[in-house]
Amino acid sequence: MNGIKVIAFDADDTLWVNEPYFRESEMEFCNLMKNGMSLEEVTEELFATEISNIPLYGYGTKAFILSMIETSLKITKGNISSEKIQSIIELGKRQMNKSIELIDGVVDVLESLQGKYKLIVATKGDLLDQERKLKKSGLLKYFHHIEVMSDKREDDYKKLIQHLDIPESEFLMVGNSLKSDVLPVLNLGGKAVHVPFHTTWEHELVSDEEIKTVGITGIQNIRELLQLV
Amino acid sequence: MNGIKVIAFDADDTLWVNEPYFRESEMEFCNLMKNGMSLEEVTEELFATEISNIPLYGYGTKAFILSMIETSLKITKGNISSEKIQSIIELGKRQMNKSIELIDGVVDVLESLQGKYKLIVATKGDLLDQERKLKKSGLLKYFHHIEVMSDKREDDYKKLIQHLDIPESEFLMVGNSLKSDVLPVLNLGGKAVHVPFHTTWEHELVSDEEIKTVGITGIQNIRELLQLV
Repeated sequence: MNGIKVIAFDADDTLWVNEPYFRESEMEFCNLMKNGMSLEEVTEELFATEISNIPLYGYGTKAFILSMIETSLKITKGNISSEKIQSIIELGKRQMNKSIELIDGVVDVLESLQGKYKLIVATKGDLLDQERKLKKSGLLKYFHHIEVMSDKREDDYKKLIQHLDIPESEFLMVGNSLKSDVLPVLNLGGKAVHVPFHTTWEHELVSDEEIKTVGITGIQNIRELLQLV
Repeated sequence: MNGIKVIAFDADDTLWVNEPYFRESEMEFCNLMKNGMSLEEVTEELFATEISNIPLYGYGTKAFILSMIETSLKITKGNISSEKIQSIIELGKRQMNKSIELIDGVVDVLESLQGKYKLIVATKGDLLDQERKLKKSGLLKYFHHIEVMSDKREDDYKKLIQHLDIPESEFLMVGNSLKSDVLPVLNLGGKAVHVPFHTTWEHELVSDEEIKTVGITGIQNIRELLQLV
């Protein structure tokens, strides 16, 4: 990969562990519900509420807490105690306060790339939440700045790259989501590297057909990035 | 005011009406509560919850909805119906979907400054919420970009100005909040103009002593900005 000036890293599940914490909260939420519905049914209802709320709430933990409360009212048909609503708020707050577990290889890679490229973070989610995680991660010193994006579609990357004042070909995005980190950037003429994470949110899944249409550079561990740039 | 390159506008209550919508929602919330507490007492409890949640949730409507739910559980000692929780969520969503009412003079001022300065929006709040409001406002075309900041303290402005790659003296901030738009920028050596709005959130109030310590340029209508730059 030649001519790269800016390397943008996705944050959640690329720099640090995130999705498993959502899965844990979902499991706690399901246990709170215990209303005769199976784990799958509760998860499905929650997912439907989350998706329907994205246009209004966007991504991140606050949206997740609000969607859990709304789902709890719906699936219990309003037959839910205040204690349980309180428990949902608390499990959401606990999730926000989780410590940061860096993904293997991240520090070595950033240490090695620093100074050679402009490194930025390009992430979705709550602004404050992502800033807090970056601070807690100890990775702040490696990055020129952090771009919290309301979404990661082609248009959003277009704006980001314009703002960076570089041609698309000098932009490399590294992330775990084919849908949000890889495909939109490739479609724009930018470069992208896919580093899969073992857990992916259903909303970020991409069909095999979509994958086949473009040549995707994938690596198994972020360390391999150093052989590509 | 000489040598200005970038003019940053606060959004809520500087470009468009915002705080009165929070006040309306608060009033609806108080009416929902009707638990023997006065409007003042309910508002006070809500404010206390909001302030205690700022470090975790930050600013914006999602944080506001979550704080209303938490307050409702607290002041009713858990004795609240699911319907009321649902109503709180709905009033929050209605607030997010409100149409945009521009403040008098804004379009004329932006029209006149466009091309002469780099114009940006520098705002707190939910990222998606502010992007949506900017889109609905029809003002998007006047701005180079929008900076949604997790807070507006000196450090936050320092980062913003560094990112803009200009000296502090070339930065002018225009906004309705002395605390968030004016004082931190003046303290950094930047320029600031205060355009008061009739309603100010208690959290944004500044003591007379603080105001006295610095010379503040204030105008009554945003149109007067054109005589200053």
